[in-house]
Amino acid sequence: MTAPSLHPFDEAIGLRPAGEHVYEGATTSHYWNMIGPFGGITAATLLNAALSHPARLGDPIALTVNFAGPIAEGPFAIEARPTRTNRSTQHWNLTLTQNGEIATTASAVFAVRRETWGCGEAVFPDVPPADAVPPLPAGFAPVRWLGAYDMRPVRGAKPSAEPGTEHPDSITQFWLRDHPARTPDYAAVASWCDSFYPRIFLKRAGFVPAGTVSMTTYFHADAATLAALGDQHVLGSARAQVFRQGFFDQSAQMWSAAGELIASSHQIVYYKQ
Amino acid sequence: MTAPSLHPFDEAIGLRPAGEHVYEGATTSHYWNMIGPFGGITAATLLNAALSHPARLGDPIALTVNFAGPIAEGPFAIEARPTRTNRSTQHWNLTLTQNGEIATTASAVFAVRRETWGCGEAVFPDVPPADAVPPLPAGFAPVRWLGAYDMRPVRGAKPSAEPGTEHPDSITQFWLRDHPARTPDYAAVASWCDSFYPRIFLKRAGFVPAGTVSMTTYFHADAATLAALGDQHVLGSARAQVFRQGFFDQSAQMWSAAGELIASSHQIVYYKQ
Repeated sequence: MTAPSLHPFDEAIGLRPAGEHVYEGATTSHYWNMIGPFGGITAATLLNAALSHPARLGDPIALTVNFAGPIAEGPFAIEARPTRTNRSTQHWNLTLTQNGEIATTASAVFAVRRETWGCGEAVFPDVPPADAVPPLPAGFAPVRWLGAYDMRPVRGAKPSAEPGTEHPDSITQFWLRDHPARTPDYAAVASWCDSFYPRIFLKRAGFVPAGTVSMTTYFHADAATLAALGDQHVLGSARAQVFRQGFFDQSAQMWSAAGELIASSHQIVYYKQ
Repeated sequence: MTAPSLHPFDEAIGLRPAGEHVYEGATTSHYWNMIGPFGGITAATLLNAALSHPARLGDPIALTVNFAGPIAEGPFAIEARPTRTNRSTQHWNLTLTQNGEIATTASAVFAVRRETWGCGEAVFPDVPPADAVPPLPAGFAPVRWLGAYDMRPVRGAKPSAEPGTEHPDSITQFWLRDHPARTPDYAAVASWCDSFYPRIFLKRAGFVPAGTVSMTTYFHADAATLAALGDQHVLGSARAQVFRQGFFDQSAQMWSAAGELIASSHQIVYYKQ
């Protein structure tokens, strides 16, 4: 008999308690980026510390992750501290340290959702269904974490423009799910929201040094809605508003195939040149 | 001889050092909202703690404020702690406590800006100039802080719709400056970004209990650009994407009259009913 093997995502975000408010984890090769772990997996791991905490109330509403310094291959510790717990909301401070230095800080808001009047104002993009779109070819980019996703680009997959010109917009859209398929939860969504390559690669049609500095995700779906997605793809869409003096922003949406906005996410990204 | 009087904004965000990493401040009546200080002034005051800190490096790039609990009239303390300082970026954790309880937490990223390739992709809205738009009438809403702003609504100022129907969108746009006029700085921008009333008031054409839970602002302008605005109005524009299970989001832009995106800001807001 063999034990059922852990999904690489669950292995990557896995934590073990190591004292009051403290968890220990380690980087894994599946989600490796250029010179450190993929930012999405770091966000998911930080969120997982609050999700795992015995004092947890409700489910995630908001997560902000500040990428303060590099994370090296190997173990790290996360301190997850509830800063304030109200009747139906809870606030968290999260700190990832490695080799005695703070590498990432984060805050999260959890809440008990309840049924209310509701309304979707943003409009689901006009795209072909996931099964009509071919997946990104293997080896598309020299980063390991891409292999952890089944990504099917609809638009803005590949930076291209006439030499000396700029791409007319910074919009990328793709169908996405974990690979192998995995029923999503909040940690998966936190990771998905960082799965767009830097907008400046598209806008300038080429590579420049760039990295997310701070990312904020709002979770619009409840746990049952996420679980019901099963192995369906979600549609991701991202765009920048401005590139200036070494920083650009990105706003992204993650949609269910049924047209429900699962999450919206924003980030500010450092770039050079 | 009388001393030159302090602008009410500078009085409101004023802090005095009270130990390493600790500052003391107090609420002021000028920026009072319904049952506590206007969230924008709290955001500005938290940012001011990092701005005032002797270890500060560079200028604000990102600010996330989590409104964890109410702030009462009276004094409060802010702990401003640099979590990591790199060569050109610096990360901050900020905590506002009052009567022994954490009321607000925040994080900020500062950076030394440098000239790079740049590009504005978002498009300045088609609006009449500020001097062609009448200001919001006095007494428009029963909140004191509105008097601290000269707000000139272009669109979506007043919640209105046929009974039993919803407003077709949640867009509000106005020209804005401090009142009395004040040359802007990062603290002013942090406050401006929270100056939109809750989008659900517009969408549902009426009042429901609502309050910002978490707000993230990205600062796209350098200090010289802000100072050069002088007493010009800026254009604010805000919209929600989804209202669901007691929370809605809002994305806002703050533009100079010359069409430069000064800041983009996002928040998640609690609502009832």
